[in-house]
Amino acid sequence: MRVSRMMLVTLRDVPADAEIVSHQLLLRAGYIKRVTSGIYAYLPLMLRVLQKINSIVREEINATGALETLLPQLQPAELWEKTGRWNSYTAGEGIMFHLKDRQGRKLGIGPTHEEIITTIAKETIHSYKQLPVILYQIQSKFRDEIRPRFGLMRSREFIMKDAYSFHSNEDDLGKTYTCMDIAYKKIFSRCGLKTVPVDADSGAIGGAASQEFMATAEAGEDLIMISSNRDYAANQEKAISIPKRPKPLPTGNTSIINTPNQSTIDELCSSNKFDPSQIIKVIIFIAKEENGGLQPLLISLRGDQKLNEVKIVNTLHNKLGINVIDLYPITIDEIRNQGLCEFPFGYLGPDLDDKYLLGAKTWKNKFLRIADHTATKLKLFICGSNKENHHVTHMSWDKLGGIPLSVDIRKAEVGDLCVHDQTQTLSSIRGIEVGHIFQLGRKYSDSLDAKYTNESGGQESFWMGCYGIGISRLAQAVIEQNHDENGIIWPISIAPYEIIISIANTKDKTQTKLGEELYNKLIKLGIEVLLDDRKERAGVKFKDADLLGIPWRIVVGREAEFNKIELFERSSRNTTLMIVDDAIKKLSSEIPSKRS
Amino acid sequence: MRVSRMMLVTLRDVPADAEIVSHQLLLRAGYIKRVTSGIYAYLPLMLRVLQKINSIVREEINATGALETLLPQLQPAELWEKTGRWNSYTAGEGIMFHLKDRQGRKLGIGPTHEEIITTIAKETIHSYKQLPVILYQIQSKFRDEIRPRFGLMRSREFIMKDAYSFHSNEDDLGKTYTCMDIAYKKIFSRCGLKTVPVDADSGAIGGAASQEFMATAEAGEDLIMISSNRDYAANQEKAISIPKRPKPLPTGNTSIINTPNQSTIDELCSSNKFDPSQIIKVIIFIAKEENGGLQPLLISLRGDQKLNEVKIVNTLHNKLGINVIDLYPITIDEIRNQGLCEFPFGYLGPDLDDKYLLGAKTWKNKFLRIADHTATKLKLFICGSNKENHHVTHMSWDKLGGIPLSVDIRKAEVGDLCVHDQTQTLSSIRGIEVGHIFQLGRKYSDSLDAKYTNESGGQESFWMGCYGIGISRLAQAVIEQNHDENGIIWPISIAPYEIIISIANTKDKTQTKLGEELYNKLIKLGIEVLLDDRKERAGVKFKDADLLGIPWRIVVGREAEFNKIELFERSSRNTTLMIVDDAIKKLSSEIPSKRS
Repeated sequence: MRVSRMMLVTLRDVPADAEIVSHQLLLRAGYIKRVTSGIYAYLPLMLRVLQKINSIVREEINATGALETLLPQLQPAELWEKTGRWNSYTAGEGIMFHLKDRQGRKLGIGPTHEEIITTIAKETIHSYKQLPVILYQIQSKFRDEIRPRFGLMRSREFIMKDAYSFHSNEDDLGKTYTCMDIAYKKIFSRCGLKTVPVDADSGAIGGAASQEFMATAEAGEDLIMISSNRDYAANQEKAISIPKRPKPLPTGNTSIINTPNQSTIDELCSSNKFDPSQIIKVIIFIAKEENGGLQPLLISLRGDQKLNEVKIVNTLHNKLGINVIDLYPITIDEIRNQGLCEFPFGYLGPDLDDKYLLGAKTWKNKFLRIADHTATKLKLFICGSNKENHHVTHMSWDKLGGIPLSVDIRKAEVGDLCVHDQTQTLSSIRGIEVGHIFQLGRKYSDSLDAKYTNESGGQESFWMGCYGIGISRLAQAVIEQNHDENGIIWPISIAPYEIIISIANTKDKTQTKLGEELYNKLIKLGIEVLLDDRKERAGVKFKDADLLGIPWRIVVGREAEFNKIELFERSSRNTTLMIVDDAIKKLSSEIPSKRS
Repeated sequence: MRVSRMMLVTLRDVPADAEIVSHQLLLRAGYIKRVTSGIYAYLPLMLRVLQKINSIVREEINATGALETLLPQLQPAELWEKTGRWNSYTAGEGIMFHLKDRQGRKLGIGPTHEEIITTIAKETIHSYKQLPVILYQIQSKFRDEIRPRFGLMRSREFIMKDAYSFHSNEDDLGKTYTCMDIAYKKIFSRCGLKTVPVDADSGAIGGAASQEFMATAEAGEDLIMISSNRDYAANQEKAISIPKRPKPLPTGNTSIINTPNQSTIDELCSSNKFDPSQIIKVIIFIAKEENGGLQPLLISLRGDQKLNEVKIVNTLHNKLGINVIDLYPITIDEIRNQGLCEFPFGYLGPDLDDKYLLGAKTWKNKFLRIADHTATKLKLFICGSNKENHHVTHMSWDKLGGIPLSVDIRKAEVGDLCVHDQTQTLSSIRGIEVGHIFQLGRKYSDSLDAKYTNESGGQESFWMGCYGIGISRLAQAVIEQNHDENGIIWPISIAPYEIIISIANTKDKTQTKLGEELYNKLIKLGIEVLLDDRKERAGVKFKDADLLGIPWRIVVGREAEFNKIELFERSSRNTTLMIVDDAIKKLSSEIPSKRS
């Protein structure tokens, strides 16, 4: 392709609205164009990168035995109502764009395809003999993000590879899950991306096991907790660790103490020389259930620990079967709106009486009481007395009437010891989620009544897995990991072109002739070449070539008359003056070997 | 690919809701699955067909110098408001799905991309030196069809190739338009599709010249008017012809005649021995203008002719600059609702007084008077007298106050002589629109203020063209032209697989061994092979192979022990018993040559 014919416009200045370097470079080098908030056009150079990533993804996913398909982007609400996801995806913070058609029927624009694919499997796979089946597609997906930002990282229209697998038993699902894990690692490595697999929360997709693939990058939106030896990594929402030991409370008797204006852990500690680990703090949340119910939660946690709200939601789902669509701390205004008296905030104890909820307008009038393991493991502790300006010391769970549901709802912190190996401590790094694999189990097949006939003639729900890669996000993540102050440095496997030939002076006939010859020769050798034939100064061409990030640059300049060119490697910035034929020989052997 | 692993389910019965054979076969052979009205999933076999069509399209469109891109499917309303298309595409009969995002901003889901691409060109192409530029994409598009039907023929989500070209002058646009014409013919021919290029109406896209490519098929929704020698073809909306000569009215004086209960042309003719061609009939329409105005039209037409409403809309746009978004015949109820007295229907004359509109509530109160050339060319004629039960004979335009705007608004009819060659007559055939190319001119660049700097430093709007191919519709049109009572007959260029090997008896080890060997050998030769390894009866496998439409079938049966197979050609249904190596030799030379 000739640069003069490819509509190239590069920007020297950093676009004002682009916060991270990969987003800036994509805009500056003319790879993408913003159309409206969170929505971008992929210009021709970008599309070539995406198509190369797609090819790598197809090769590796086909190798798992998966079949490529293409599902509709418009999805009927009925299917999402069957799985109970229509409301949580469209109301409130729900991220699914949705509309009504001319007949008034509700349609969503697909952020994911579990409902559609499970329905198709139900109608197509009748017998265990047809299993396992893995289907995948590469397609634009949609999320009405609350804060679209960082270019393709968090956009409202983005390209995904999503795969779904169907199995007759959990073991077989596990096998495919492992195959996908391996395929994903190959894909990211072939794209030149460094990733860390991390234990992840399954979120709104649901299901049992799940693992994210994080491209490590300072600009990443996700915080990853990782052991020093990298054996353990989990995203912050899912991470577990061993909490620090509490400082034992000196012996003493249970007694109420006067603690005026000591409503925070800090005030309480500094006035009484307590250690935060000796205190149980109590926090009240409201859980909005899927069916609309509003459940007050009374949560106990050791004073030195922080709450992990995602773990609370998962606890409610996994241990109590409650599907929560929103979780928020209680406020004084809300208590008033419920027509209730004020709570003794700052002095709450784990035994706060349910009578505080009596007569609430829309809240349930019994607390659901849960406590973190750090709290329930304390034999003696200090806690609120449920009376303004008073706490209790040397309290025990027995005296409070017993231990509430004890669960892990604390945040793992940097410096904590690791559960898998107590010689390791946790540290944190930032990452960009580029892939996610899930063992869904039977959540979708049960709710959509998707069954097959098993070997003994009975009807059983499919075991399912699902596996996603953010294709457009991956492309940008590669830039976040591969750039310098001059621009992008594409790995050859996904570079839009492999070589750019810059004719230094297009008025010089020798240079132009050699440039054109080289261009045609390299194309014949199956190499993807750009010819910068623009009537621009050499400096402009070199700056653009650096910005575009083409792996190799051939400069046809003054040495052209001696049949020599300069070969410049973008990544190392090494320049070598070479005889043309030697350069061709080198490139035509090196490039194909580095492609895959 | 092994048939046992590809989730194949075929249907013996014709699905109830599929009216045309290509739709029935796609469903029966498991190529597509209906998700909801007008929305289909492309299952793995279908996706392979679509990908092959895409490859052919890419090759031919790239050869025109076009650059592939990918534009967002979600489009901000602001851009469509600038071109004045938001309302006509979203209100009333408008076919654009549309929604509001969480910020309340309006978005459309793209049925076409003129607004987006013109905006990008405006921001990217600054100088005449960058021109011409052709951009294209292959993508799912959306239309909220009033009556989705015929499977992929008129679906609500479908795959399109759409290209857009930008030029510094009309000549250059013409050149690209011609290149596209040639590329389109190559594409359709390579896909094994017989098409007729026809003059077309530009419709809501707008612009000057436009040509449709029609796949000829009985089941086609479009009526094509075509000359006997096929030199001229146009869709019915656009077709022109020479009307039959009128029967001259015998001489006589202008006089009012009593015509009680003769309010139709038929009654008037039979009671008075008139010929319909001697009469001028008058019809009143209401044109709803883009800005909301309601303009009554008084239309005169020779009594033996039929009105072409599309030509009326185009006349108003092209000759009077009025953009009409709806056109409908006036009704008695509406006249009453406007608070007007009844019109003398059945006896209307071209000189009906504007006073009939005086005091109308929302209608403009002057008729816009237009007449078809067949009417204005009559020297003497019979017409309504605007008085119940009375007509006038031997009337002339002079006596009516002059000739109104004379235009072509009649339907061309089968049997009419052709304009381009009066030795030819028009006949009609049915077709499926698979492609459409337009010379848009400056309609979009003007309204979006998309300009470049010309050679003399001035600012000029781009000249634009746009070029579409319905990829998913094309795939189905190929089946409509290529099938028999047993199933689909794919042309090898777009067949999902090239060969299917059917092992007649999978319990026979010799057969299985030979089948597997052949399968591996053919794959190594780069041929796309299905191996029907299912434990089904041979008859079932043959029926399925016929239904799927794979071009070649190799039956590994009883002759396997003599190293012989049966080679069956799907299109000719010829079977040849062959030595295995001869079959491999034949197929590996014939298939690659027929692919392109």
